[in-house]
Amino acid sequence: MPKHQNPLSNQSQPRLGVAYFPEHWDPQRWATDARLMAEAGLKTVRMGEFAWCKMEPREGEYHWTWLDEVIDILAAEGLEVILCTPTACPPAWAIEKWPELLPHSKPGEIKQSGTRRYYTPFHEGYRSACRAIAREMATHYGQHPAVTAFQIDNELGGGVEDTGPLAQKAFQDWLAQKYKTPEQLNQDLGLIFWGNEVTRWPQIPVPIERNQNPGLRAAWREFWSDSWIAFCRNQTEIMRPLIGSRRLTTNCFLHRWEMKIDWYKLVQEGGIDVFAFDNYSLDTSENIYYNRLARSLSDPFWILEQSCGNTSHHHRWPEKEEPFEKLTHQAIAEGAESVSFFRWRQGLFGLEQEHAAVLDHHGRPGDVYRRMQELAGEINRTPPSRKTREADFGIVFDWPSAWLTANSPRKIDYSDLIRERIFRAIHESGQQVEFLHRPPSGQAPPFLLLPLLIRHDPEWESFLEDYVHNGGIAIAFPLFFAKDANNQYREEGMGGKMEALFGVQMEKRILIDEEFPLQTEGPSAKGHWGLRQEILSLKGAHSGVIFGNGPHPGSPAYTSHRKGRGHAIYLTAYPDATGLEEFLQAVRNLTG
Amino acid sequence: MPKHQNPLSNQSQPRLGVAYFPEHWDPQRWATDARLMAEAGLKTVRMGEFAWCKMEPREGEYHWTWLDEVIDILAAEGLEVILCTPTACPPAWAIEKWPELLPHSKPGEIKQSGTRRYYTPFHEGYRSACRAIAREMATHYGQHPAVTAFQIDNELGGGVEDTGPLAQKAFQDWLAQKYKTPEQLNQDLGLIFWGNEVTRWPQIPVPIERNQNPGLRAAWREFWSDSWIAFCRNQTEIMRPLIGSRRLTTNCFLHRWEMKIDWYKLVQEGGIDVFAFDNYSLDTSENIYYNRLARSLSDPFWILEQSCGNTSHHHRWPEKEEPFEKLTHQAIAEGAESVSFFRWRQGLFGLEQEHAAVLDHHGRPGDVYRRMQELAGEINRTPPSRKTREADFGIVFDWPSAWLTANSPRKIDYSDLIRERIFRAIHESGQQVEFLHRPPSGQAPPFLLLPLLIRHDPEWESFLEDYVHNGGIAIAFPLFFAKDANNQYREEGMGGKMEALFGVQMEKRILIDEEFPLQTEGPSAKGHWGLRQEILSLKGAHSGVIFGNGPHPGSPAYTSHRKGRGHAIYLTAYPDATGLEEFLQAVRNLTG
Amino acid sequence: MPKHQNPLSNQSQPRLGVAYFPEHWDPQRWATDARLMAEAGLKTVRMGEFAWCKMEPREGEYHWTWLDEVIDILAAEGLEVILCTPTACPPAWAIEKWPELLPHSKPGEIKQSGTRRYYTPFHEGYRSACRAIAREMATHYGQHPAVTAFQIDNELGGGVEDTGPLAQKAFQDWLAQKYKTPEQLNQDLGLIFWGNEVTRWPQIPVPIERNQNPGLRAAWREFWSDSWIAFCRNQTEIMRPLIGSRRLTTNCFLHRWEMKIDWYKLVQEGGIDVFAFDNYSLDTSENIYYNRLARSLSDPFWILEQSCGNTSHHHRWPEKEEPFEKLTHQAIAEGAESVSFFRWRQGLFGLEQEHAAVLDHHGRPGDVYRRMQELAGEINRTPPSRKTREADFGIVFDWPSAWLTANSPRKIDYSDLIRERIFRAIHESGQQVEFLHRPPSGQAPPFLLLPLLIRHDPEWESFLEDYVHNGGIAIAFPLFFAKDANNQYREEGMGGKMEALFGVQMEKRILIDEEFPLQTEGPSAKGHWGLRQEILSLKGAHSGVIFGNGPHPGSPAYTSHRKGRGHAIYLTAYPDATGLEEFLQAVRNLTG
Repeated sequence: MPKHQNPLSNQSQPRLGVAYFPEHWDPQRWATDARLMAEAGLKTVRMGEFAWCKMEPREGEYHWTWLDEVIDILAAEGLEVILCTPTACPPAWAIEKWPELLPHSKPGEIKQSGTRRYYTPFHEGYRSACRAIAREMATHYGQHPAVTAFQIDNELGGGVEDTGPLAQKAFQDWLAQKYKTPEQLNQDLGLIFWGNEVTRWPQIPVPIERNQNPGLRAAWREFWSDSWIAFCRNQTEIMRPLIGSRRLTTNCFLHRWEMKIDWYKLVQEGGIDVFAFDNYSLDTSENIYYNRLARSLSDPFWILEQSCGNTSHHHRWPEKEEPFEKLTHQAIAEGAESVSFFRWRQGLFGLEQEHAAVLDHHGRPGDVYRRMQELAGEINRTPPSRKTREADFGIVFDWPSAWLTANSPRKIDYSDLIRERIFRAIHESGQQVEFLHRPPSGQAPPFLLLPLLIRHDPEWESFLEDYVHNGGIAIAFPLFFAKDANNQYREEGMGGKMEALFGVQMEKRILIDEEFPLQTEGPSAKGHWGLRQEILSLKGAHSGVIFGNGPHPGSPAYTSHRKGRGHAIYLTAYPDATGLEEFLQAVRNLTG
Repeated sequence: MPKHQNPLSNQSQPRLGVAYFPEHWDPQRWATDARLMAEAGLKTVRMGEFAWCKMEPREGEYHWTWLDEVIDILAAEGLEVILCTPTACPPAWAIEKWPELLPHSKPGEIKQSGTRRYYTPFHEGYRSACRAIAREMATHYGQHPAVTAFQIDNELGGGVEDTGPLAQKAFQDWLAQKYKTPEQLNQDLGLIFWGNEVTRWPQIPVPIERNQNPGLRAAWREFWSDSWIAFCRNQTEIMRPLIGSRRLTTNCFLHRWEMKIDWYKLVQEGGIDVFAFDNYSLDTSENIYYNRLARSLSDPFWILEQSCGNTSHHHRWPEKEEPFEKLTHQAIAEGAESVSFFRWRQGLFGLEQEHAAVLDHHGRPGDVYRRMQELAGEINRTPPSRKTREADFGIVFDWPSAWLTANSPRKIDYSDLIRERIFRAIHESGQQVEFLHRPPSGQAPPFLLLPLLIRHDPEWESFLEDYVHNGGIAIAFPLFFAKDANNQYREEGMGGKMEALFGVQMEKRILIDEEFPLQTEGPSAKGHWGLRQEILSLKGAHSGVIFGNGPHPGSPAYTSHRKGRGHAIYLTAYPDATGLEEFLQAVRNLTG
Repeated sequence: MPKHQNPLSNQSQPRLGVAYFPEHWDPQRWATDARLMAEAGLKTVRMGEFAWCKMEPREGEYHWTWLDEVIDILAAEGLEVILCTPTACPPAWAIEKWPELLPHSKPGEIKQSGTRRYYTPFHEGYRSACRAIAREMATHYGQHPAVTAFQIDNELGGGVEDTGPLAQKAFQDWLAQKYKTPEQLNQDLGLIFWGNEVTRWPQIPVPIERNQNPGLRAAWREFWSDSWIAFCRNQTEIMRPLIGSRRLTTNCFLHRWEMKIDWYKLVQEGGIDVFAFDNYSLDTSENIYYNRLARSLSDPFWILEQSCGNTSHHHRWPEKEEPFEKLTHQAIAEGAESVSFFRWRQGLFGLEQEHAAVLDHHGRPGDVYRRMQELAGEINRTPPSRKTREADFGIVFDWPSAWLTANSPRKIDYSDLIRERIFRAIHESGQQVEFLHRPPSGQAPPFLLLPLLIRHDPEWESFLEDYVHNGGIAIAFPLFFAKDANNQYREEGMGGKMEALFGVQMEKRILIDEEFPLQTEGPSAKGHWGLRQEILSLKGAHSGVIFGNGPHPGSPAYTSHRKGRGHAIYLTAYPDATGLEEFLQAVRNLTG
């Protein structure tokens, strides 16, 4: 699916690596570290993030000698380098020159420096400084034989979001670009609610209070996603011509800080070659979920930070995490081409001074080092042999839909729902499942699930009509196409075309309290259903199993409509993982 | 009791109505809505709140055509209109013209626009703009035959309280008006505590931190109550001469945002004709409590927002609310003349896009519409026949007393205590109970309860002496007259007159931990007592039943003093509802 | 140990007293109060804190007449006066003159006046005003026969910490003084982490966010401790020459607001004669702990506020506190020379209007007064007879070590750990235990415990070598000497000297989840161990009892190394009180 399919074959040899902060350690130690890394069987070393103050201690004064030296030492041991642009942490001179570069945690409350990500991405001076350091780095290392890839910034966006005047102005400009006139904005977002219509762009507030307009709040999410993609492109555009065939990437994250950046769009428009993410997952099902989602964004993909222990303390008892060996083998089986552990050695100082690492504070190889050595040996010995099975199920995954529910008073956590209710059920029943972000041009999986696909999307609408006609089984869930992209409920419900396809009309939406789940009738039913129930009138569809309790006992848990050679199925509530397994069993009988 | 007794007989026909936001919908839909409303048997339509940006999109440029058209369409269906001044949501031009109009959530933290109530009521320009829009609206619609009433603003005060420089200056002026000199202020509020005395008015801070002076914090409450009353009067004064006999009101609230406005004083001084409130109560006892309290403020009264489902989601399972039919019948039995449901149709956009409504998003009549139709038919058919029973019990209800305890370190929730311990016990035992705000000039109920009447009030003091002398039974509770209006404890306790009346002297106040309640002796005692225990020395009174546990086992749960033809009874702790029923039983034997 | 050993013999007669606020009451009442105090057997009256607005209502205009009068009335009853400088509450004129005197709760958020401690200690104008009022007070009362001591300010620091520009500048200056160059600062604190190095002092932020550099955050703690000591000295230096042999002190606190001020350093450098503290402890073991700690700071010591009831309400049921009689007897047995109850009478106004007091609001003597009278009689009758037992155990107590763990992601509460795990176990087993702050020059206790002594301290290092050599038993715990004073982990672990002394090398530190404690083997083992486990390799030491569970079952709970005539013992985890008792029993067998 992804546009920037990685040029490498997915049969390339997977490589392990490690994040290294040479600037934290006495240069006398560098050679020891390089030797230990090589002896462990590691292949790549990721460096440079957070080192701007060493690379350009005063504006325009670049210091590369120390880094040249480190790279030479690593190269001498046969190690490859992934170099990061250091733009997640502005150097002190930048803050002193541009005090307005510090972001506002909320309007009027300025975030302190001395942490990380203490910048607003809307500062022109800073964006220019970022281009300059990226250009210098690419110029200096873009042809270096040991340097094989570049990472942009670190965890774009992170947990910080500017709400100050620079962000407000950028948001107003973004809205003006998108909606053209204040009248159109008022209309599309429903600003007439509580009399919030505007007549001029500067009147638009930053929508960061829980009770501001949900349309404006969804727009704020899209604006931020677009802004970080542009921030990334600001550097990739400069670097691209200077680095030959070296790869460009950035370390994304799939589970934390909500779903703030549309990574699919980043892959399309951010100027990177390969999707990469940081992985701190805790169990194997969750781990496969993240890797599978990564694969839908680029295949192969990279893991730029793989934890090798608990993030808040290196060793911990009892362990709460699966052993990193198992998580790594899973990742490689899913298509990870590069897995870089975080980090080489526990820091003696700084916030993460007890963070997991390959070496302890004292720097002597211990348990973790020896385990890593064994793992790397095994991986280095094994020829690549990943076989891609054809998917039985597809799940449509849509960032903008997540933004819509996140701003409603009765929020549903998109990521949790997809991971724990939908993916886990299918995966644990042994079926193969893949994620889709846009309608596929070629072969689509025989079953296509549309959970929380709230945002009406004409492209998917057209595709679904053809898909079912040609034998596909489309499976919709409550709130399917319920809203437009501006977070407005659609007066027409799911719309005439989809009513015709699914053979139903939506009459009433009911909130189901989590403590009082629904259950289907029959002695074997073990699953629970909930979150929402939708009462449908049947317009051609027939009823599947029915609910034994709830506001309308006897109403269907799902409806099914034969259309062309396929089926269009509508679930009227969200099953838990057990309920979904039961449903899928029934649906295979129905359609098999 | 209330001064502005409503001129209408309380035998007028009750009317149902609905809140409507025509500006949210395509004008093509208006006629359909009007017809459906009429067919449902609704009589009134409340409109206009939050529509300032449509009425005056640019300063001084008034647009009434659209509203004229809506009103004509409604009138053609025989519907009456309640028109609201839109001052709860300043139009964008006002914020742009006066950035300082935005309130400070706390000093230095400015509330965003794009919600509601984003204004400080102390801005002279805004108060003038409010007068202007009120004058225009009254001029334009003050003689319109379909418009029968006007509502000022929406939920005055709400959850927003300005703490910025305009509020601080207004508070200082209010204090100067009340206390005349800084020396008097220091003296009356006890500002010498922690050395906080002032020598000039501008030195006075906004008392919004929990550990600022309790006297100043009680003054801040009274100041805000007075300020919202003045904000209301600012509009009623302008509109009164322009609207003939049409009613003026505003939608108050009895259970949310604490007890921030003294509605009794609003009825006296705010320039309104009828007390109205918004009712989102959840159970029948609570519902009767609010309606009974409303009746003590004006009889008849109105309900301007009556919920027809869960406020955060239209339909919900399991339902947590009593059906609206039952709540409405109760309200009418209590004296509600007008009950307006909130709202006609679920909004497609805006914060409350899932709020309960008569119609769902799709706009087709469903369950709720049909239930509403049946209810309205029933009410329209039934001739008014409310019979007022004479009250057996009176409860003195006093906003300033609530402000005193709310600012003490050991806060007691005034509203909860009156509702759940006092009112519920009497009401559920089948006795008739009414609320009193000032000493009655005529007949008083035979039993008069004085719970949490903390504020010493010479008027009530005089009244109580006469009342007991003439055969009344006065029932006091802990903290009776314990403080003056400035939140100072009175050195003299309840004072010589009241000691003589009740025949006791207060020796010691004890805090009773809620987990360790007191119980009276005797096998039949089921009630629990608590919150406070007061140890009294008897000066003529004799002891009622005694406590079997607590800090002074054997001390009386209440004392009783025969005085003239009546009794003065002092409860030494707060019984729960069961305990109060037991006490009332005993007291009827004692005095019967 | 303490340098400023009190000149008085510890055989002086202990005295009870009371805090009095004459400025809160009608002067007519003063004589009554004085008589009642004297009749109760009280000896001292503490006055003046928070009364600056009465002493200097306008800048430079001093009013002492009212205080002269009060002191005369008290003196006539034979009472002594402890006079407080009123600098905890700036008068209104100071705030009006210097609005920038108000502290920033966080950057940009200004604390309101109208509470207490609403000042930044870094304002030069205010420091000068403090010197002036201290000088005037010392000049006026420094030779008064009834005035026997002065207290500086009230609860220095308290819960308020300025984060505004004045504090930031003072912090930068303090760092410049300590580290000399930005390069040294970067190096010592590890500012390279997240690229936070600075090139000029003004670039340093206030480190008040949880995720700022732990070294900078530990420095911030030391800076504040030093600053309050300097704030105290600012007054003591002025007053010292003016008050003859009268005592200078200030009321510290041992259990609240974390461990923000190094009281040991305050005693050394703050210019006071006697350590005094405010005691609101709740049980007897905690009470002895505070008093024992106080004794390690000066012997005798004073208690300037002793609670006589619950702080949030005078009387309460059920009581949660031990009776004040018992707490007072304990304090005197520990070496308290002066115990001053807080406060004489419940305030009618102000935040603490329900605070415990000797008299209730009404001012008539009641229970508490009579109990106080009995207690004072008993103490006044009993000749001083405290016998100091020689300590069996010493505990090293170190404020800077507390600052290090407090700023790590896996914080351990220093004060709780010492009190509940270490002190309580030893004290309740009947052994005598004392606190040490610096290596003793003379006799040291036979057992020396070093719990959470995280900060490597060369002085203690040298002492421990000699101590064990000469027969002492040193007992270390996890994290012993693990960091330097800049909150950096030491690459060398506990260091070569200590490895040689304890005969172990630290291999691995493990976080033990509190819900899964470790247990030693053997049927009699009841204690639980936890917080951290350290895996040691034995380099001469031998293993004590071993753990039966945890990450390394079979590893020792402690190791023991015979060295010279003594033993060096290393506990590999933190036992709870039961575990420590078991260990101490074993260690006595081992070494006895």
